[in-house]
Amino acid sequence: MKAPRYTKLVASLPSTVPFVGPETQERARGKKFAARLGANENVFGPSPKVIAAMQAAIPDVWMYGDPENHDLKLALAAFHGIAPKNIVVGAGIDGLLGSLCRMMVGDGTSVVTSLGAYPTFNFHVAGYGGTLHTVPYSGDFEDPEALINKAQQVDASLIYLANPDNPMGTWHNAAVLQEMIGNVPKGSVLCLDEAYLEFAPEGTAPELDIENCNVIRMRTFSKAYGMAGARVGYAIGHADLINSFNKVRNHFGMNRASQAGALAALEDQQYLTQTLARVAAGKQRIGEIVRRFGFEPIPSATNFVTMDCGRDGEFARALVAALIAQNIFVRMPFVAPQDRCIRVSAGRPQDIDLFEAALPLALEALK
Amino acid sequence: MKAPRYTKLVASLPSTVPFVGPETQERARGKKFAARLGANENVFGPSPKVIAAMQAAIPDVWMYGDPENHDLKLALAAFHGIAPKNIVVGAGIDGLLGSLCRMMVGDGTSVVTSLGAYPTFNFHVAGYGGTLHTVPYSGDFEDPEALINKAQQVDASLIYLANPDNPMGTWHNAAVLQEMIGNVPKGSVLCLDEAYLEFAPEGTAPELDIENCNVIRMRTFSKAYGMAGARVGYAIGHADLINSFNKVRNHFGMNRASQAGALAALEDQQYLTQTLARVAAGKQRIGEIVRRFGFEPIPSATNFVTMDCGRDGEFARALVAALIAQNIFVRMPFVAPQDRCIRVSAGRPQDIDLFEAALPLALEALK
Repeated sequence: MKAPRYTKLVASLPSTVPFVGPETQERARGKKFAARLGANENVFGPSPKVIAAMQAAIPDVWMYGDPENHDLKLALAAFHGIAPKNIVVGAGIDGLLGSLCRMMVGDGTSVVTSLGAYPTFNFHVAGYGGTLHTVPYSGDFEDPEALINKAQQVDASLIYLANPDNPMGTWHNAAVLQEMIGNVPKGSVLCLDEAYLEFAPEGTAPELDIENCNVIRMRTFSKAYGMAGARVGYAIGHADLINSFNKVRNHFGMNRASQAGALAALEDQQYLTQTLARVAAGKQRIGEIVRRFGFEPIPSATNFVTMDCGRDGEFARALVAALIAQNIFVRMPFVAPQDRCIRVSAGRPQDIDLFEAALPLALEALK
Repeated sequence: MKAPRYTKLVASLPSTVPFVGPETQERARGKKFAARLGANENVFGPSPKVIAAMQAAIPDVWMYGDPENHDLKLALAAFHGIAPKNIVVGAGIDGLLGSLCRMMVGDGTSVVTSLGAYPTFNFHVAGYGGTLHTVPYSGDFEDPEALINKAQQVDASLIYLANPDNPMGTWHNAAVLQEMIGNVPKGSVLCLDEAYLEFAPEGTAPELDIENCNVIRMRTFSKAYGMAGARVGYAIGHADLINSFNKVRNHFGMNRASQAGALAALEDQQYLTQTLARVAAGKQRIGEIVRRFGFEPIPSATNFVTMDCGRDGEFARALVAALIAQNIFVRMPFVAPQDRCIRVSAGRPQDIDLFEAALPLALEALK
């Protein structure tokens, strides 16, 4: 017997897990979380119409889903006022980021992102052999100008920016993004991750420009539409760029019930409006609570509040651990100086009650 | 503006689609199929307990699925008498084949398969820059000895064999496979695709040997368990090989309801037994029908019958088109001399009634 011959690249990769799931933590603790506020899931759940559509699709799950995602793409195209050829549907933004990296990143390809931005993107860049160049946040904001400058400097093929940003919750308005888009170096692609866009105020998203082959927009049903476990995301871009996904994607990879659910979600904009109001109320209340304990809620255009604990990463890490010990699942940004913060997803009133009760106990435990 | 800089490999790939879906054909025809017998889906559908479990999981779909697939892996491990560390769960065998190719295939890596075997595997090999070497079928059987000889000759990293075979439905017994496994060249990995194993007679599968790092076994809930649209497959192998999937897989890629459904499917072995009997009856009847028209059903250990039309590819292609014109969705193997055949999935009695009525009309139309 002799070990398999992995590619040199794969042999060199660590068995990384970008995020440890809450279930893994629950198993380690031997106890369920009372409030699940750490993964920016949408605790309010999908529309009743989505639940009904998905449940109705389950008996048909013996059939593969349509590999073209035709109906969903048609509906998305109508929704956005673009053509189906400008849309590719995939298994969440995570899956689409993987395909995008596969298309554009090879051995030593330069890629630019912010230090402390989405780790799963970095996982994919490393997984295809790319060289990641980072720029620091400016205050608690991703820094479009610095990203562009770095991209020029290192001749980047791919630039990543999340707007609104995760893990900080901050955002730039459309004018800032439009300027950034105008400055993308020739031949680079800006991957604009808009997973949280629906939570952001009007005027956050620059206009869709499907003639521009140097920008790709990522959207998802995981956040505002409350369907993280259904795994449906999509990308919007120039037809050539979008069509290139067909070279690499898992054509029969979509869940049939999820396709039906996403279609129903898109059609129920009234429920989305309700969700946005609930999330806003939840964020408001989380802000009030953390302020009461001397922490600062960073203004957020997402479904979570990143609370600035005002001290170092060691303190925030200890507080996260203490909250987890109180059965509250929360997370913290991974990189200093943002690691002074803790990220709390906007929960239902009963989730926030639990957080409110746990916070003083956690702080007490730290003394 | 300047075109994105794709990797050299991706730029060279065609925008291939390994299979055109039935929905695509329906849209082109402007008409639904009356019987869906072309994709080897399990028309009998999943167990009522699976449907109930998946429907019950839908309201929780706002949560990401457990990225470790812990509960499902634990159940599969108990079922197979192995450890969870010897199992990786993925979005169907298609997704797992993609990950396996990514792990083992780089620019010019030699890979061996049978000429006319599963196109999606070939799609992945090409997609990672591998060089595919093929050996012909021997009669209507994949040829283990020829595959091994070719693998030695071209120093293959990866060898693919489906047992039972798709598209022919034929199979080898465990002893033949065991001998093949013993002859896998050092450092090569034999990917043994057992998607249709549950339909095969006892004594088809060689024993699981999770100490052997040169074999990986692929299984799925898409076929016998009737869950193609749920996208759940798994691979069984040496712990090191299995753990390497963690370097590249989409950790949060699994659908939460599908995880619950697969667990319920595995627990309902009684329903599986019923399905197997129904499929056997369907195959029997398809065999009788095609014989009546002078065609030969090739013995099959799968859920489909590959009927030998006894003439050339041109005739079989015309007959497939004529059956499709009669609203019967069937497919044919793609490569001569197997392209003299047409593949008909074992349907419900009402599906086979439609096939039985359509076949003489299709033949009439060809005259």
